[in-house]
Amino acid sequence: MIEDITVRYLDNFREKTLVDPILIEGLPGIGQVGKLVAEYMIHMLAAEKIGEIHSLYFPPQVILEVDGLARLARNELFLYQSGGKSVVFLVGDHQSTSGEGHYILADCYCEIAEELKVKQIYTLGGFGVGHLVNGPRVLGAVNKKELRPALESVGVTFDRDEPGGGIVGAAGLILGLSAQRGIDAVCLMGETSGYLVDPMAAASVLSALSKLIDLPVDPTKLNDRAAEMEKAIESMVEGEKGKDEELNYIG
Amino acid sequence: MIEDITVRYLDNFREKTLVDPILIEGLPGIGQVGKLVAEYMIHMLAAEKIGEIHSLYFPPQVILEVDGLARLARNELFLYQSGGKSVVFLVGDHQSTSGEGHYILADCYCEIAEELKVKQIYTLGGFGVGHLVNGPRVLGAVNKKELRPALESVGVTFDRDEPGGGIVGAAGLILGLSAQRGIDAVCLMGETSGYLVDPMAAASVLSALSKLIDLPVDPTKLNDRAAEMEKAIESMVEGEKGKDEELNYIG
Amino acid sequence: MIEDITVRYLDNFREKTLVDPILIEGLPGIGQVGKLVAEYMIHMLAAEKIGEIHSLYFPPQVILEVDGLARLARNELFLYQSGGKSVVFLVGDHQSTSGEGHYILADCYCEIAEELKVKQIYTLGGFGVGHLVNGPRVLGAVNKKELRPALESVGVTFDRDEPGGGIVGAAGLILGLSAQRGIDAVCLMGETSGYLVDPMAAASVLSALSKLIDLPVDPTKLNDRAAEMEKAIESMVEGEKGKDEELNYIG
Amino acid sequence: MIEDITVRYLDNFREKTLVDPILIEGLPGIGQVGKLVAEYMIHMLAAEKIGEIHSLYFPPQVILEVDGLARLARNELFLYQSGGKSVVFLVGDHQSTSGEGHYILADCYCEIAEELKVKQIYTLGGFGVGHLVNGPRVLGAVNKKELRPALESVGVTFDRDEPGGGIVGAAGLILGLSAQRGIDAVCLMGETSGYLVDPMAAASVLSALSKLIDLPVDPTKLNDRAAEMEKAIESMVEGEKGKDEELNYIG
Repeated sequence: MIEDITVRYLDNFREKTLVDPILIEGLPGIGQVGKLVAEYMIHMLAAEKIGEIHSLYFPPQVILEVDGLARLARNELFLYQSGGKSVVFLVGDHQSTSGEGHYILADCYCEIAEELKVKQIYTLGGFGVGHLVNGPRVLGAVNKKELRPALESVGVTFDRDEPGGGIVGAAGLILGLSAQRGIDAVCLMGETSGYLVDPMAAASVLSALSKLIDLPVDPTKLNDRAAEMEKAIESMVEGEKGKDEELNYIG
Repeated sequence: MIEDITVRYLDNFREKTLVDPILIEGLPGIGQVGKLVAEYMIHMLAAEKIGEIHSLYFPPQVILEVDGLARLARNELFLYQSGGKSVVFLVGDHQSTSGEGHYILADCYCEIAEELKVKQIYTLGGFGVGHLVNGPRVLGAVNKKELRPALESVGVTFDRDEPGGGIVGAAGLILGLSAQRGIDAVCLMGETSGYLVDPMAAASVLSALSKLIDLPVDPTKLNDRAAEMEKAIESMVEGEKGKDEELNYIG
Repeated sequence: MIEDITVRYLDNFREKTLVDPILIEGLPGIGQVGKLVAEYMIHMLAAEKIGEIHSLYFPPQVILEVDGLARLARNELFLYQSGGKSVVFLVGDHQSTSGEGHYILADCYCEIAEELKVKQIYTLGGFGVGHLVNGPRVLGAVNKKELRPALESVGVTFDRDEPGGGIVGAAGLILGLSAQRGIDAVCLMGETSGYLVDPMAAASVLSALSKLIDLPVDPTKLNDRAAEMEKAIESMVEGEKGKDEELNYIG
Repeated sequence: MIEDITVRYLDNFREKTLVDPILIEGLPGIGQVGKLVAEYMIHMLAAEKIGEIHSLYFPPQVILEVDGLARLARNELFLYQSGGKSVVFLVGDHQSTSGEGHYILADCYCEIAEELKVKQIYTLGGFGVGHLVNGPRVLGAVNKKELRPALESVGVTFDRDEPGGGIVGAAGLILGLSAQRGIDAVCLMGETSGYLVDPMAAASVLSALSKLIDLPVDPTKLNDRAAEMEKAIESMVEGEKGKDEELNYIG
């Protein structure tokens, strides 16, 4: 019987020694802000892939690489190590398709963090405001009060225009579930219209995150990367639309 | 692997001795009547929090407190003790998102009641009539015929304008499932339009309940509390709307 | 943890000796034809209740009896015994709310049939044609070819106007799943518009079934029973509508 | 308790010795291309049925054969053996109704392939383009780069007009999941409008597949077969529509 979730580490991972690692989560979400920032950092820092996650809570499809190679939908773990710093990245194609799957996957991510002895988790996302934003702010959330001042010191705001609200999906659940394991976690959300891959929101989040983890990353190629990602997502959505209509018809 | 449901009692709970406790359930529902009554009583009686319930049947999101602290969606247990009376309250952010989860959660609540040796359960809710109601009545339901006269003696009616019907969610299922464990349970439903947090319906339910359990609670601040709750719910719904659109787009 | 399905036999069942029993299934469905026929037979034959089935695949709600007593949604088993005949009836409030639940419940019904050593199963239903029908025919389906001639000898037809098609829910799945247990099963479907509780379709099915099992039942009160059932269903649907809107709003 | 999935081999299967078998999957999907090709090959090659697959992830209904015999929705395994060649076909009525069921079923198909020591899997499908296509191309996907040249040598193209995209359902997931078991697998997709059973797309796929497995099959009767299949699907969809409306009403 297929497992709900499988986590596989690559062979290269065995040689690694992680020192007080941090984990940065950037899965698909509002305005693709988290995904864009995390994948951009992986690219610019030449982080090394160390693992893969597959799950039957992801959409039931394979993804076609440009060369016609089909692969399961997946999440991936990357590692960047330099000057005593260990940064693990969690990125991927999809989040869960069901509510219960969201919880089970997010708890799995926290279990990975615990096993890797992660000291702090940063989850990245967008904060949808429904209209274009000039100079998008970065809004913060924490899973422990003591974590707030550090975020405020790099310009992250906790003043929402509307009070209350929540954070849906992995970026939020990781905060809640890692608290139960005693792991510090914060969420950085860039204000975004939410309709397109948003490099402006991503730049704001990247800037704040770079300061927080003391790891400068040149933001000048974010626009190019956003354009590529927008194109890739569009073609995937197009492809799925045609197929879903058909599957509904024949299901 | 994450548990379906986790029930955690706080440390303060160990020192407590409950004497013939009753359980009052007031989870979100029609016109937020049950939630408003139970949370208002907790506030006015200064009941003490004794436990928390988390579940993957709740919506997959965290809730942001005003100070930017993120926490998992949850239900909570509160305890009020005075003059030999022990009253446990069950309140919370959400009910289940799936039909099967509703059964599993409701059965968990009944298991808690059985463990605490609860003598009687009161589930609170609204009875949606679709139009504004002047002088809303309180409609009753019981899980044992013998429980009906006591309710009628405080003005609760069993005469529906329309015969038949049902009670959806925790307020109903707790009645059905607690009967199988031999626990008495009644449901009090205030007539309500159903469209807004309804302090008038709540006042009717509170008045009947106070008499039934012989615990007077001053109803004069119900309007203020209802206004606060309406505001909190609106902002949460707003927040989720924006996010859901996005998640649908990218999921 | 609550069971997926619980089957409870009443105390009176222990004294019974069933001789080559048959099982008649009449759960809710198209035009309520099966439910109407089976509940009418139970009423007219004064069959005795012998068991109850509860399941978390039923809708998450309790049903209110006229006297304010709340009970879980359920299916029921009734027994009629006379002159060496043993007839078990399976009726109830609901079918499953999920596709997987349909399979699990239908298999449970077949397991009950096997335990009771049922020789033949009759599942009853409506065959929706979308318009009013004068002199509705009874269409048949069998889970073994040898069962067809007996049905045809009492006027059941196997000539559909449109070829192909299927039978959704318990009435169909019981045929398929009982075959795997070596139990003979046939389905009788009365042609019906499908929009209302249909006593004309029920009369046709009752007439064919009475001949097949050699058990005459006076059909003259079917109209009254249909009118009662229509009223009960309407009020239940009304009640649920109001509640569901609200639950969607607050869920 | 009913199993998620049951795989039953017929008695005739025990006598067979499979030599380096290949597996051809043609389940329902876009334009019914895969189903049409596989069922047509089974018919023309007079392949022998060797097994059946039932699952609670299929729709909860039975299918009526022309003679009134009701049977569970199912997938079927057929075997063709000649001149040292062993070809197993996987065809059937339905794919899964849920995302998780898609993964579980596809993994079961790969497990079957592993047990039968299948050397190579061919999954067949349609590639929906939303408009009529003259001279439909066959698009390919592989689960290992080395498999691509063989496909290209028979005219299969890997040049999509739009980059990216995915393959939904069994045809795709089998590629991804069989890779984990070390089984080679390729997917052949005929370009199709997607709206009707498409014999033109099927002819293109059949032609490429025949060359790849060196097994010529006369394509001239594909049109007749497509017309039959279209009629069967229409009547099934008609039947389900009427029933679903009703089930929604009474559920």
